[in-house]
Amino acid sequence: MQFKISKELLAQIEQLIHDKNDQELEVLLNDMHHADIAEIFEELETAEATYIFKILDSEITAEILPELEDDLREKILQGLSAKEIAEELDELDTDDAADIIAELSQSKKEEVISELEDVEHAKDIVDLLRYDEDTAGGLMGKELVKVNENWNVLTCVKEMRIQAENVTRVHSIYVVDDENRLKGRLSLKDLLTTSTKTPISQVYIKKVDYVRVDMPNTDVARIMQKYDLEAIPVVDEMGRLVGRITIDDIVDVIKEEADKDYQLAAGISQDVEADDSILDLTRARLPWLVLALCGGFISVRVLGLFGGAMNNHGNLFFFTPLIAAMAGNVGVQSSAIIVQGLANQSISGSLWNRLIKEVSLSLLNGIILASILFVGSHFLLNVELIIGEIVTIALISVIIIASLIGTFVPLLLHRFNIDPALATGPFITTSNDICGILIYFSIAKLILGF
Amino acid sequence: MQFKISKELLAQIEQLIHDKNDQELEVLLNDMHHADIAEIFEELETAEATYIFKILDSEITAEILPELEDDLREKILQGLSAKEIAEELDELDTDDAADIIAELSQSKKEEVISELEDVEHAKDIVDLLRYDEDTAGGLMGKELVKVNENWNVLTCVKEMRIQAENVTRVHSIYVVDDENRLKGRLSLKDLLTTSTKTPISQVYIKKVDYVRVDMPNTDVARIMQKYDLEAIPVVDEMGRLVGRITIDDIVDVIKEEADKDYQLAAGISQDVEADDSILDLTRARLPWLVLALCGGFISVRVLGLFGGAMNNHGNLFFFTPLIAAMAGNVGVQSSAIIVQGLANQSISGSLWNRLIKEVSLSLLNGIILASILFVGSHFLLNVELIIGEIVTIALISVIIIASLIGTFVPLLLHRFNIDPALATGPFITTSNDICGILIYFSIAKLILGF
Repeated sequence: MQFKISKELLAQIEQLIHDKNDQELEVLLNDMHHADIAEIFEELETAEATYIFKILDSEITAEILPELEDDLREKILQGLSAKEIAEELDELDTDDAADIIAELSQSKKEEVISELEDVEHAKDIVDLLRYDEDTAGGLMGKELVKVNENWNVLTCVKEMRIQAENVTRVHSIYVVDDENRLKGRLSLKDLLTTSTKTPISQVYIKKVDYVRVDMPNTDVARIMQKYDLEAIPVVDEMGRLVGRITIDDIVDVIKEEADKDYQLAAGISQDVEADDSILDLTRARLPWLVLALCGGFISVRVLGLFGGAMNNHGNLFFFTPLIAAMAGNVGVQSSAIIVQGLANQSISGSLWNRLIKEVSLSLLNGIILASILFVGSHFLLNVELIIGEIVTIALISVIIIASLIGTFVPLLLHRFNIDPALATGPFITTSNDICGILIYFSIAKLILGF
Repeated sequence: MQFKISKELLAQIEQLIHDKNDQELEVLLNDMHHADIAEIFEELETAEATYIFKILDSEITAEILPELEDDLREKILQGLSAKEIAEELDELDTDDAADIIAELSQSKKEEVISELEDVEHAKDIVDLLRYDEDTAGGLMGKELVKVNENWNVLTCVKEMRIQAENVTRVHSIYVVDDENRLKGRLSLKDLLTTSTKTPISQVYIKKVDYVRVDMPNTDVARIMQKYDLEAIPVVDEMGRLVGRITIDDIVDVIKEEADKDYQLAAGISQDVEADDSILDLTRARLPWLVLALCGGFISVRVLGLFGGAMNNHGNLFFFTPLIAAMAGNVGVQSSAIIVQGLANQSISGSLWNRLIKEVSLSLLNGIILASILFVGSHFLLNVELIIGEIVTIALISVIIIASLIGTFVPLLLHRFNIDPALATGPFITTSNDICGILIYFSIAKLILGF
């Protein structure tokens, strides 16, 4: 099974909308997965998507909402009354509902909340709204199955059946005390394989992984990934069970985090896609290009400083792009390894060891590359021996400096709690370009004395 | 809860190993999660890790094995006999066991298999060995709970309890026919909330997502992510149920794929980490640097072609790094957006539309940047007006060409089934450097006629 939207299907749907053939549209779409309908929505005009949205059952449309891109969801919700939105949210899990409400304007938010039918559900959603979206609290849902440690298994199973009705997937049954403090867990499997007469206190597992409600979502993701967890309970400052996070939300966090780092490394500062508007794409790309252009100004000035060399050693200028490019590439490599290491928490050892390692590594790379350059400059490029020597020495020095900048700038940013991924891409290439050119011409000046 | 290895803990463990104090080591480590012990292993000498490995219970050590980095696992396994390895594998799920056996030498592989105690388990492992590791077959495990559509719920629950003993986490109960063909599924929740007297055929859900055994693992990841699945059954070419894939393996696939793309964008061609050996790091980094150096040679030759300009218009050469850098940055941005779009299958529309969009986008960016450059070259860099005009025109042209190269090279690679991520990073920067310089000096020559 792999769903692909065909042109024929899209044309068929558009025709049905045009003909206002609601009945056939319902038959066609009711059979589809909500994630597939969301994909179709992205291909339609907003008016068409809204049209379909209104004829489908709220059980289905509610599930479609969280799957949509932010801007399309916003447009569709604008076409709905507070009561209609509330009907959708009544069908959703608390975490998805809270995410959607959080995007509404303040006045609409209150209106929608007052229209929610299920009071318990509404309370849970409002409760979730107060957590920062980048923390465990912002990820968690209120749907969970919990039992009291003082119950026996019989009461427990009865209670559980009632609670399970509201929970899409039961991963674990959490055990709490009278104060709602998390004490342990029961696995569904244990329940399947244990006699119903056993008292709860004898069955439950006291060891239970949990996260605090204020833990950053990337830390939650790392923990769930490391320990292969499919759900994790969330506790507040007093150890009371307040929610649970499921792995499907964590998959999204991991993907988003990786995409963001990738885009930063490529000099793109917002979450954009190829199909976004030209304005959105420009907003994401232009700032980094302006930064690179400013760096370019500096490189022009630096080269100007050494303009005197042009009379007798003009050849030197032919090598500036080569030196700049090598500096940029080495810097990006070094910074990417550090940024990834920081993200995976796989960097150990002291700064001093890292310095020694980075210098040895770049010395090894530098000597190999400089040898190729020396031979190449002589046989392929036919420059004078002295120029060949200068670019060779310059290349080794530039590679060492560039790799040190690439390594230590992200480490420094990290220490000051700034996202080290900012230091990859254009930032590192630009600063290394300038440094590289400066080093190259300084060496040339030292040797040639112009 | 968040585990951090402290220096004190490491020192304590090393001391205990040195003192051969097995009893205290066991007490200390038995309480830890196997993923944490794996982290400790990475910090120890191989001999120390092997020492601990041998004193711990095989129930624990088996779980540690899949968590280790490949090279450390290899070293530890080298210190074990075939029988000892088989004991570990007997404790593991089939998918993890198969992954570990696949890494052994051919002769050791056969020895280990012959030592496996549980014959059914051994059969399953051998069966898994024949699948390509990058496919659904390579990801799946044999542990699953299935029932026959012709049973009643009572038989079903009995059978299930037996089967569930061997399955770490029961996600779904799959329903098959007499030929083992997948017909549908039962949820555990349904079983909890349904009377045991109901016949199976009335309870089970006929709609079930599944993947074919030969589907690429990245496609499986996309499907499970899109439909928020925690497990998916795998069928063979005849629709027979052969295994199931769980979300924790998919999380690893998503992470690895993202890491790989990120590294390629930064010019690193193997999966390396900051703490790998200098030789490994060099092997991953040097090839791209050699490519960039060769590109550098070409740029030197190209500049040489225009060497005649040096006498009267030497200023032109001060701008080469700026033009090259802008070309590189624009190209990387464009290619990154395409590579990510291809990975997420979010690129729609015709090539022609993409061409128009990319040209409009780069025209917009180009005009803004060129205006800054024109003003800057006049007031900040004090170059003659004609040079300012040339670099301005060149910048717009270079940005358009660079973004077209950045967009269409990955699309082209993708069409020929080559990983488009190869076209990001050094490859795009280097070719755009060269093109940029060529365009810049050609425009200069056209206008100045040197």
